[in-house]
Amino acid sequence: MKLRSKDLLGLEHLEPDEINLILDMAKDMKKIVQSNMKRVNYLQGRSVITLFYENSTRTRVSFELAAKYMGAHAVNVSVSTSSVAKGETLIDTGKTLDVMGSDIVVIRHSQPGAPHLLAKHINASVINAGDGMHEHPTQALLDMFTMQEAKGGLEGLTVAIIGDIMHSRVARSNIIGLGKMGAKVRVFAPATLLPIGIENMGCQICSSLEEAISDADVIMGLRIQKERLKKALIPSTEEYARFFGLDVHHLAAAKKDVLVMHPGPVNRGVEMTSLLIDSDQSKINEQVTNGVAVRMALLYLLAGREEH
Amino acid sequence: MKLRSKDLLGLEHLEPDEINLILDMAKDMKKIVQSNMKRVNYLQGRSVITLFYENSTRTRVSFELAAKYMGAHAVNVSVSTSSVAKGETLIDTGKTLDVMGSDIVVIRHSQPGAPHLLAKHINASVINAGDGMHEHPTQALLDMFTMQEAKGGLEGLTVAIIGDIMHSRVARSNIIGLGKMGAKVRVFAPATLLPIGIENMGCQICSSLEEAISDADVIMGLRIQKERLKKALIPSTEEYARFFGLDVHHLAAAKKDVLVMHPGPVNRGVEMTSLLIDSDQSKINEQVTNGVAVRMALLYLLAGREEH
Amino acid sequence: MKLRSKDLLGLEHLEPDEINLILDMAKDMKKIVQSNMKRVNYLQGRSVITLFYENSTRTRVSFELAAKYMGAHAVNVSVSTSSVAKGETLIDTGKTLDVMGSDIVVIRHSQPGAPHLLAKHINASVINAGDGMHEHPTQALLDMFTMQEAKGGLEGLTVAIIGDIMHSRVARSNIIGLGKMGAKVRVFAPATLLPIGIENMGCQICSSLEEAISDADVIMGLRIQKERLKKALIPSTEEYARFFGLDVHHLAAAKKDVLVMHPGPVNRGVEMTSLLIDSDQSKINEQVTNGVAVRMALLYLLAGREEH
Repeated sequence: MKLRSKDLLGLEHLEPDEINLILDMAKDMKKIVQSNMKRVNYLQGRSVITLFYENSTRTRVSFELAAKYMGAHAVNVSVSTSSVAKGETLIDTGKTLDVMGSDIVVIRHSQPGAPHLLAKHINASVINAGDGMHEHPTQALLDMFTMQEAKGGLEGLTVAIIGDIMHSRVARSNIIGLGKMGAKVRVFAPATLLPIGIENMGCQICSSLEEAISDADVIMGLRIQKERLKKALIPSTEEYARFFGLDVHHLAAAKKDVLVMHPGPVNRGVEMTSLLIDSDQSKINEQVTNGVAVRMALLYLLAGREEH
Repeated sequence: MKLRSKDLLGLEHLEPDEINLILDMAKDMKKIVQSNMKRVNYLQGRSVITLFYENSTRTRVSFELAAKYMGAHAVNVSVSTSSVAKGETLIDTGKTLDVMGSDIVVIRHSQPGAPHLLAKHINASVINAGDGMHEHPTQALLDMFTMQEAKGGLEGLTVAIIGDIMHSRVARSNIIGLGKMGAKVRVFAPATLLPIGIENMGCQICSSLEEAISDADVIMGLRIQKERLKKALIPSTEEYARFFGLDVHHLAAAKKDVLVMHPGPVNRGVEMTSLLIDSDQSKINEQVTNGVAVRMALLYLLAGREEH
Repeated sequence: MKLRSKDLLGLEHLEPDEINLILDMAKDMKKIVQSNMKRVNYLQGRSVITLFYENSTRTRVSFELAAKYMGAHAVNVSVSTSSVAKGETLIDTGKTLDVMGSDIVVIRHSQPGAPHLLAKHINASVINAGDGMHEHPTQALLDMFTMQEAKGGLEGLTVAIIGDIMHSRVARSNIIGLGKMGAKVRVFAPATLLPIGIENMGCQICSSLEEAISDADVIMGLRIQKERLKKALIPSTEEYARFFGLDVHHLAAAKKDVLVMHPGPVNRGVEMTSLLIDSDQSKINEQVTNGVAVRMALLYLLAGREEH
């Protein structure tokens, strides 16, 4: 079986069988990540370029390691705003990388839809590593992998996502992906941080933390984006911590074996307390390991697609 | 046959047989760039360092991929002006990289002659990836490769170079290289953007765009360097676009199968219209692919020189 | 034989037999650095991350090349002050890299003890590549390797360290390491640039350059850190050059075959004259080559420790 598209632009475009394919393959890849011999040749002679218009050490390194573990060439291109101002368009930059022999271009961009635009114009596969407030599909895939691994499946799980839903492409991709896989998603957010149209996304909008967490299988916190919270009508860091911050005592209302997740990096003491982050139920580090595994699976499924 | 020097500092120092050697070898390398298996071992165990004192994603990535496709270690060193101020001289920096086991140091520097200075003081081969307004030999080599591939040879071709000749090391290297290979070069530039001494470089200085383009085999636009165009006595971006910008209607005066080239990145609508850039006659993307191939050939000829 | 710790945090924690083990293995590694085939597989499938909170081209490239020559994956993470401010703690950043499959994290940080903190919280081996004014153990190891190679051993050598001792982690690590190996260390510094407690470190504090150099086997200059010398009570660059700068005429007082060393980059004309830097007795370039060799040995001893 194969992925149907040459690109991974969002969970919006993936069918459940494709999601299962990626998650299944990631299981094998995880063994490689956790071994002493993190080097296979499945992508030898292929080129993976990370083209990041926004800073991100974590996601960039995850992709870079995934590419290297698979035996691919990995090249980083960081484009600062200043050099964008120099005049070259996104398509021209992407096309240039394409014709240099890239097999996969992993792009992060502040503009929603930038990966989709690029994908139409180049032959290489495009992976969306985050486009503005739109999608971050590999994060949702690694989140789903983490849940599936711990719970045995996604169908019927209750996942509570807490915090700044509006600015979170992670939340958006998870809502879409988990919905497709038969999980129930609840969200609880400051009233001003709920995106328009959330009521049509198939998730339950809760009016209290307790309601969201009650009998949940998974609780997912979201990174508060401090720079955006300076604006009026949205809570201060202190208010956010007080009304939306998660602590161990919240777990009582959830299922006994609830998983605590967070896409990272966590602002300790804001969206979660250290006690919770470092608790046995926290899967935050596991998510990071799984991120490399999921990306390896994806690179393999995309860059090996013609021959396999 | 070999290259006569351990370095590639400029086309000034290459003989026609050496240029042919590089262009011939690049033909084979291009097949690798365009394949699914972009990995050979010709440079395994060799180190290629890119030492860039000026920003350049495009050229840096081209060299990095070329090195990786050849199986070499590739390491990037970006030196910002601030750390130069810390006190280490160019020679000391280069010598440091040299004794760490570098086989090739690819240098870009704002000062003309910087690569030449470095080359005298280190054992590694030095490749000039652009030195101020002086030379950019690998760009000219890839341009010549592109012309030769499309036209079957360089001898007798008429090449029109249009735009800011004065600030262009690309123009300079092409004028020198094409002259050596028997092509005729015409230039057309704003009067204030013609370099001193251009009349002694063996190219024809045209007084109109039409004169330059008439019966041309190749038309090459040049990137307008906006930061420099702020000064008095040189045209504004708008004037440049109007009087030196190229559009499809200009092609009528040229040969029917004229090639349109540009070293990139292009400022769309300034030195060329999008219609022209994306036309069938445009070789701009081909140039990028050829750039990787030419650099692979060069790395091979330089870093394998002792044994081959 | 193995190293006793999973980490290299400082020479403080190494026993003489461990230092000898590293220096012995570095001899073999140096042959690789100086060969045309700088690629072995001893660390294939292992990951080495350089996590630098302070800029350093020289040390970063040395570790990156060492990792690549050993066949490991090498990934660079540069953390600027601004992104530290984003909120993630050192431990969280390190833990993230750890669970992505890192075998070794090489860290440089402005805070003394940062590598020690990290080492306690992650499974990967931690190498201290400089922590504030505390230690820089790989620099001292390469310095000792250089001395041993030239002199046949370290026992009984007289090493004079001249300059800004207070701010120098290089001096500190050398004083500790050389002391352990039976060498005598003398220091001569501006009165205001002697660290508190230096009298208890087992080295001789000299009151004149002549006293320090007299019959010395090795003279080591230290990089003057210009930014710090702006403060009052410490000498200006000119005063430093005049009273603590080394020149060829100083060598007369030392042993005939005295070695001149400097951790680099050198401020020519400040801590040493160019005549001295480029003299036959200067080992400054040799130190750089040895740095790669010592780091290769260390990577091998740490990342191969479980199986060997």
